[in-house]
Amino acid sequence: MTVSDASEKDKAVDLEVIQGRLAAIEQRLENLEESQPEDKVALIIFSGDLDRVLAGFVIATGAAAVGQEVSMFFTFWGLGVLKKQTVLSGKNLFEKMMAVMSPDTSKNLPVSKMNYFGVGAKMLRKMMKDKNVSSLEEMIDMAKEMGVKMLACEMSRDVMGISDDELIDGLEPAGVGSFLGESLTSKTNLFI
Amino acid sequence: MTVSDASEKDKAVDLEVIQGRLAAIEQRLENLEESQPEDKVALIIFSGDLDRVLAGFVIATGAAAVGQEVSMFFTFWGLGVLKKQTVLSGKNLFEKMMAVMSPDTSKNLPVSKMNYFGVGAKMLRKMMKDKNVSSLEEMIDMAKEMGVKMLACEMSRDVMGISDDELIDGLEPAGVGSFLGESLTSKTNLFI
Amino acid sequence: MTVSDASEKDKAVDLEVIQGRLAAIEQRLENLEESQPEDKVALIIFSGDLDRVLAGFVIATGAAAVGQEVSMFFTFWGLGVLKKQTVLSGKNLFEKMMAVMSPDTSKNLPVSKMNYFGVGAKMLRKMMKDKNVSSLEEMIDMAKEMGVKMLACEMSRDVMGISDDELIDGLEPAGVGSFLGESLTSKTNLFI
Repeated sequence: MTVSDASEKDKAVDLEVIQGRLAAIEQRLENLEESQPEDKVALIIFSGDLDRVLAGFVIATGAAAVGQEVSMFFTFWGLGVLKKQTVLSGKNLFEKMMAVMSPDTSKNLPVSKMNYFGVGAKMLRKMMKDKNVSSLEEMIDMAKEMGVKMLACEMSRDVMGISDDELIDGLEPAGVGSFLGESLTSKTNLFI
Repeated sequence: MTVSDASEKDKAVDLEVIQGRLAAIEQRLENLEESQPEDKVALIIFSGDLDRVLAGFVIATGAAAVGQEVSMFFTFWGLGVLKKQTVLSGKNLFEKMMAVMSPDTSKNLPVSKMNYFGVGAKMLRKMMKDKNVSSLEEMIDMAKEMGVKMLACEMSRDVMGISDDELIDGLEPAGVGSFLGESLTSKTNLFI
Repeated sequence: MTVSDASEKDKAVDLEVIQGRLAAIEQRLENLEESQPEDKVALIIFSGDLDRVLAGFVIATGAAAVGQEVSMFFTFWGLGVLKKQTVLSGKNLFEKMMAVMSPDTSKNLPVSKMNYFGVGAKMLRKMMKDKNVSSLEEMIDMAKEMGVKMLACEMSRDVMGISDDELIDGLEPAGVGSFLGESLTSKTNLFI
């Protein structure tokens, strides 16, 4: 064997080692790329207060407007945003009581402070209109048109006895797992 | 030097350069891999309202059930979830006043809306039971069994004068730094 | 062509292929590195309750203290934290009503529970002082000194008619886009 032959062999070995390292690197890169959170937003709308819900929709429509994927999980009082009417038949006593004391549609959501039996909420809506800010109902429509995913928490619906007839169209059923799945791949997660 | 010798040398140089680039790439990959947030969840339980706290535990136990690491930081009103009793001796006047006006255990947490001196909270608990949803106390036990880390905020405890005797077992002391550390490596962070 | 020549050519091809793979890998790495969220914190301060706002500032100053970049977006009731006075002239009727019913400065923020017309807030401030915890105003100053970015939501200011004269200095104007931008690159996002 000449010196040149030996170095030839070394280089062949080197090349093989290098190709091995490259393959390993490419696999690690792929794993990293696949596990990256995306420019997505996942919001839990727990609150049923007009002011907090509005903040949620400003964020949702703002994100959708710049091309971000947005999911909104409506749970507990937040389900009030999705109601188009209250249907008492089929509800048990407690469910009826809760339904009667809760807003029947998004139009009657209270504000979290200074509500004064709805006067505060009306005042806020008037102030928004005066400044040409979209109303909650307009924002809900905008969000839907922009492809914002709207999910209704099954467990809350079950506990409160809210039927399909009471909710607006275009909702997807969801559990805590749906939110957790979305939140793993979303860069922005908020509990509102 | 023949042409072949020159090309041999070039290739040796190339191999060295390649190995340098590989090493640099591997280092950058390692840095990236180490700084990746994990499939973890970090929750701040600030609220002491039954409804909000329940939402927190549904998320915590849901995430733990699918193998995610979960930390819950109980601060301010949220410390009420961790109380097993109220011990007045050793408290100063303000601490006593606050203790007397606050729920003595998780069983007496109010709901954030329509509480009506505890009637709302009882109603919610009854509605959950009717639909076979675990009670808050069952969820707390489940969370502990599933290895959810439960941390009690030292600063809030200090300000409110809450003694060890008043809190359930199995808690870790924590400050804002503990939360920030967890949140840096968690994909889901929520303020509840 | 000899065998050696052929293998020479193969190796040259190999090297070229390897260099191509390396360049592709380096590009992917760069893309990944650039899209990594940073050790930053982005907080939306929606609430104007002393207790919740304090939690926000404890997190903000705690994060800034360990070198994290922090942004606080004050919106809706949270704008109350930034008020140095109330100026009624120039406001319309609803804006005046809202201004008169809202805290005029951070010193008069209520607590979210047991406020009893401000007694609860005073009590909390006293309890914090007794335990040598910084007051809200001290925390605001600390946050500013530490370089925490403080942003005031333009849309909320517009709706409520809050003028520049009413707000403290050193604020940056902001919209939902500013928050979304920060939140994409922040590891910790919270809605408070």
